[in-house]
Amino acid sequence: MPSSCIDTELVPQYSFLDDYSEGAHPQLLEALLHTNATQQMSYGNDEFCNEARQYIRSQLCASDDEVSIHFVPSGTSANLICIASCLRPYEAVLTVDSGHIVCKEAGAIEATGHKTILVPGVRGKMVPANLERVVRQNQFFPHSAKPRLVYISNATELGTIYSKQELVELSATCRQLGLLLLMDGARIGVALSAPSSDVTMRDLVDLTDIFWIGGTKMGALLGEAIVVRSHLAEDFVFHLKQHGALLAKGRVMGVQFRELFRDNLFFQLARHANEMAQRISANFEKLGYELAATTDTNQVFVVLPEPLIHRLEERFRFYIWERLEDGSCVVRIVTSWATEGLQVDKFNGWVEQWTRV
Amino acid sequence: MPSSCIDTELVPQYSFLDDYSEGAHPQLLEALLHTNATQQMSYGNDEFCNEARQYIRSQLCASDDEVSIHFVPSGTSANLICIASCLRPYEAVLTVDSGHIVCKEAGAIEATGHKTILVPGVRGKMVPANLERVVRQNQFFPHSAKPRLVYISNATELGTIYSKQELVELSATCRQLGLLLLMDGARIGVALSAPSSDVTMRDLVDLTDIFWIGGTKMGALLGEAIVVRSHLAEDFVFHLKQHGALLAKGRVMGVQFRELFRDNLFFQLARHANEMAQRISANFEKLGYELAATTDTNQVFVVLPEPLIHRLEERFRFYIWERLEDGSCVVRIVTSWATEGLQVDKFNGWVEQWTRV
Amino acid sequence: MPSSCIDTELVPQYSFLDDYSEGAHPQLLEALLHTNATQQMSYGNDEFCNEARQYIRSQLCASDDEVSIHFVPSGTSANLICIASCLRPYEAVLTVDSGHIVCKEAGAIEATGHKTILVPGVRGKMVPANLERVVRQNQFFPHSAKPRLVYISNATELGTIYSKQELVELSATCRQLGLLLLMDGARIGVALSAPSSDVTMRDLVDLTDIFWIGGTKMGALLGEAIVVRSHLAEDFVFHLKQHGALLAKGRVMGVQFRELFRDNLFFQLARHANEMAQRISANFEKLGYELAATTDTNQVFVVLPEPLIHRLEERFRFYIWERLEDGSCVVRIVTSWATEGLQVDKFNGWVEQWTRV
Amino acid sequence: MPSSCIDTELVPQYSFLDDYSEGAHPQLLEALLHTNATQQMSYGNDEFCNEARQYIRSQLCASDDEVSIHFVPSGTSANLICIASCLRPYEAVLTVDSGHIVCKEAGAIEATGHKTILVPGVRGKMVPANLERVVRQNQFFPHSAKPRLVYISNATELGTIYSKQELVELSATCRQLGLLLLMDGARIGVALSAPSSDVTMRDLVDLTDIFWIGGTKMGALLGEAIVVRSHLAEDFVFHLKQHGALLAKGRVMGVQFRELFRDNLFFQLARHANEMAQRISANFEKLGYELAATTDTNQVFVVLPEPLIHRLEERFRFYIWERLEDGSCVVRIVTSWATEGLQVDKFNGWVEQWTRV
Repeated sequence: MPSSCIDTELVPQYSFLDDYSEGAHPQLLEALLHTNATQQMSYGNDEFCNEARQYIRSQLCASDDEVSIHFVPSGTSANLICIASCLRPYEAVLTVDSGHIVCKEAGAIEATGHKTILVPGVRGKMVPANLERVVRQNQFFPHSAKPRLVYISNATELGTIYSKQELVELSATCRQLGLLLLMDGARIGVALSAPSSDVTMRDLVDLTDIFWIGGTKMGALLGEAIVVRSHLAEDFVFHLKQHGALLAKGRVMGVQFRELFRDNLFFQLARHANEMAQRISANFEKLGYELAATTDTNQVFVVLPEPLIHRLEERFRFYIWERLEDGSCVVRIVTSWATEGLQVDKFNGWVEQWTRV
Repeated sequence: MPSSCIDTELVPQYSFLDDYSEGAHPQLLEALLHTNATQQMSYGNDEFCNEARQYIRSQLCASDDEVSIHFVPSGTSANLICIASCLRPYEAVLTVDSGHIVCKEAGAIEATGHKTILVPGVRGKMVPANLERVVRQNQFFPHSAKPRLVYISNATELGTIYSKQELVELSATCRQLGLLLLMDGARIGVALSAPSSDVTMRDLVDLTDIFWIGGTKMGALLGEAIVVRSHLAEDFVFHLKQHGALLAKGRVMGVQFRELFRDNLFFQLARHANEMAQRISANFEKLGYELAATTDTNQVFVVLPEPLIHRLEERFRFYIWERLEDGSCVVRIVTSWATEGLQVDKFNGWVEQWTRV
Repeated sequence: MPSSCIDTELVPQYSFLDDYSEGAHPQLLEALLHTNATQQMSYGNDEFCNEARQYIRSQLCASDDEVSIHFVPSGTSANLICIASCLRPYEAVLTVDSGHIVCKEAGAIEATGHKTILVPGVRGKMVPANLERVVRQNQFFPHSAKPRLVYISNATELGTIYSKQELVELSATCRQLGLLLLMDGARIGVALSAPSSDVTMRDLVDLTDIFWIGGTKMGALLGEAIVVRSHLAEDFVFHLKQHGALLAKGRVMGVQFRELFRDNLFFQLARHANEMAQRISANFEKLGYELAATTDTNQVFVVLPEPLIHRLEERFRFYIWERLEDGSCVVRIVTSWATEGLQVDKFNGWVEQWTRV
Repeated sequence: MPSSCIDTELVPQYSFLDDYSEGAHPQLLEALLHTNATQQMSYGNDEFCNEARQYIRSQLCASDDEVSIHFVPSGTSANLICIASCLRPYEAVLTVDSGHIVCKEAGAIEATGHKTILVPGVRGKMVPANLERVVRQNQFFPHSAKPRLVYISNATELGTIYSKQELVELSATCRQLGLLLLMDGARIGVALSAPSSDVTMRDLVDLTDIFWIGGTKMGALLGEAIVVRSHLAEDFVFHLKQHGALLAKGRVMGVQFRELFRDNLFFQLARHANEMAQRISANFEKLGYELAATTDTNQVFVVLPEPLIHRLEERFRFYIWERLEDGSCVVRIVTSWATEGLQVDKFNGWVEQWTRV
């Protein structure tokens, strides 16, 4: 197919850039419409937030006493509030070097006064051996900041996921070392819905001290739900207010989380995202391309030759993740709850066609 | 009418507590529906944010070079970001003692490291004479923090508004003293739409250095638009990101502000809120009640006897603002873009009926 | 004596500006000399710091388990570390409006992230009634920062002191309201040594949660000793390190505090300072001048006519504290451990001579 | 020599732990004595601070307009103030992974709100190629914090020093990338006095934007002199005050720096420290031990077998720096201005004797 046929003016590019390019799942918007006119209490005390909390607790098999739940507008808010609420001023957070808070939060963690200590990651994951070693290296008190909180993401920034066994061991290591464990769940939906996952929502309660459930990347217009264990929950809402994350109309998040967790919509959407990624990933493998990481969730990392990349870029958008020395590139393809099967088919078709050339 | 007839279970109370008890104006929700499916750039770079910026600039009669516009999810975000972005670490913000940032932001300003210096307010407003005196009292450098930014609200926390003359004089005083001027515009809609106001949107550009336009209190689900003059605009978006205020789906605010500012809806809604307050206020005056402040905008402060308050509380919700020594109270009644005329009529009717008793 | 005779080039002015114009008491310098050559552990773990801690504990009648003691180089360090160590991010400190941390610390408290809430003072002192009222006004949680720590100075910024009864009542109020109590003891020496004082060192342990003993204003080159009750003492040294207050050669403070507290030198010096102030104060009273505050400690606040001030300024240095409407001024005269009796006599003599004119 | 003969109770260990185990050089103490009685202005405005500033400027060949000089009590103060004064809230500091601010400042930098970005070091030094690469990797704005200030130490934490050529190239790279350059000069004395150094004091002015001269490690009881170029100097003293580093009796540092820089004492002491280290280092090399780093300054890093270490520990104190896999260790020996030649001879003698065994 000659490139002269391509007219990017006429053929708009379909985006696989990220999982937040579309608005909200229609069911959430509809719920916003239906609930719009009622007068509600402000600042997260409305009935929709309360119902959403009950649905989430139910999914977590957790009682009111075990966990508090708070809604915040962004992942950065969630991370900085979780971290700042747990730590005394001289305490530090430990994260793998590929962690989101290392170089994608504009220094938001440090802006709350806390140091981040880097731990070498293994396929994006924190492993007990590396954690222990780095904690040992940071014991020259009071000259070293005190390691206190371990930050992990699930799914990780590389799309990988933690197994139950891995979480059990990591959690045990943390408790032994006197460390708290925080899970960034911006993509917890696709993580727990991955075919290879054996982790349940209840496990998160048992194995971490605080975690958050990402709504923005799973069909909400905005909103992340912080789940905080009771020993860390006192006065938590002050942290939200102080960081501008306590919305006057908290209902906008309550209504959406109520829909996501009332009937399993959250996990249905996550499975869809994963399936779309699987289809893309399987096609690449079938055609002999090398995956740069196993496709556990909704992110496909694949090594492609430059000419193919240029062809694909005429019709699709995605990020070049890394340029390799031989001229090829690692490309990241992200699917979402909104990814259309038809577009996946088209994408796979073009990959196949241009591979044959 | 005997109180035994009242059954609050059956007669739900209509809320005059605040101007954020309802969801969004229907036109905004509809626009969210219509734009929902399109794929958009993230983090405020979508076409809706860009269009909203152009509509707002057009209202401000300001060019792209004059002002930058950024959308943030809450008033607290807006205030802390505006202040933190303007100041060096040892610089302080000056505010009247009734200012919102004094005791309604959970120390959010101080959490960014900055001192707030109190200036005695006059009917909720900052006046040049008091400002000058307090600045003079804070010149024992480097032992005093350096006064640098003046924070005002318009409308104020007492519902009063600044006249153009007042703003011109305050602005001149600030420039003479080397101070920047920030206007908290959580209620800028009702302020500029007040019958007694002679301030234009353009005046805000000319007379302040940075201000923000409140969407949450004027029909949006969430969102405030920060307008920053070019001399303070460099790298501004970093501050948003660092404080968790840069939403992945910035479109949710862009779409709403586009609707609010495309055809004057913003000011139509503001005028409605003001009219509802006027009707309530006029009724109180007609019946001989004392207003604790002139009703310039959508807040009515009125002195009521306790028995009347109890009666009204059976059917309406509002805040007791202050308890007076004679047993009466200052009550705050807030109307909004969503306040129903019918409810205002009912409220006025009940006030009249119970006054006659 | 005609003013033309005065030649300020030839007649150097003697300073009553403050209590830190001279170096150290000679006994402290000598101890620095004698201990200089020995090798010592660093960062406050040297034998001199340890001995100083034991002498101070002995004065406090406090066991090792009851209090921890840390030396820091400045009063600002002491205040910001005491406050930051006690508070969670959203908690605030309460202080009288004349408190040192309000406008003489360059925003150092706020730079650690904490709000200061102002309480009207009574002759520079915090009184339970005002404290309770302000705490009540700051309960609109989570919108109000949470009042948590009460800051007082003894002697106060106006030279007044707390009686035991006042401290007992304030302490009880704090405990009832769930508040911690911090005493800034920059001038604790002159406060406890005042003839009218009935407060003991032990009382400070019993009635506050944390306090500090000022060395800089009582004969040391530098150094303040923070005394922290065990419930707040965990990990305290991290705060020192993090704020640059943990000196490598902590011995420089240990040696000096050892001298000050080995044999009561600290209180001898304080009594001298008080006596010098008493002589100046008594002379003013004898001559009919009005004191603007009772002279409890080493600060004399007196109302003087401008001509007398000009005469005195030819030979002495002191601060004009406040300009009164009738043209006279409140003048502050500060004495110290180093104030020479001869200079006090000269000062009194000149006051008397120029009063007679 | 049988170990049973050793009685550590009777044979006190001589310390090579660090360069701050002793007090001050006697000439500095004497100057404190001589100047003690005079009344001086406070907060760094005394005549001794001013003279010290002139002597330092003279050594720097810098005019009053070119640099401001401020004295602070500790290295941590110096680092956190230098960094906080240069950066806007979202800006980050770059440092080699072995940098002092990475894990020896208890998170003091982050406590001022700023991120530290790690750059792989080469023998403790920052090299342009690595710096450029890391800066390139941190350009995903506004999600990455903005790289803005490069922190280096000279001598480095590994005892190595920068050549003039290295500094010229690093400085040029910084300016090209829009980065400021800060030099931590805790050990600038031994660095510039090293036989292999070709860097002058003037070079520091020309090639950095801000640096500090360590007094604590070069014979002062306390004190570091921050030298800040005029483009960063405005309002600098506020930062000192805000961080508790502005001592009321600034004279204590002024007097000492005046002595250190009046007649080259500073560099004489530095040369002594270097010579002592050279003698120890040369002895090790003569006896066939491997140095873990070249001995440029006053730190000797040498690989020793465990038995020898145990023997030496009976009479000397020093740090085990790293345990190697073969059971031997890297040991750090630090000399100072106060190190006694006799002790060096004894140490070398024991090393030789126990090596022969």
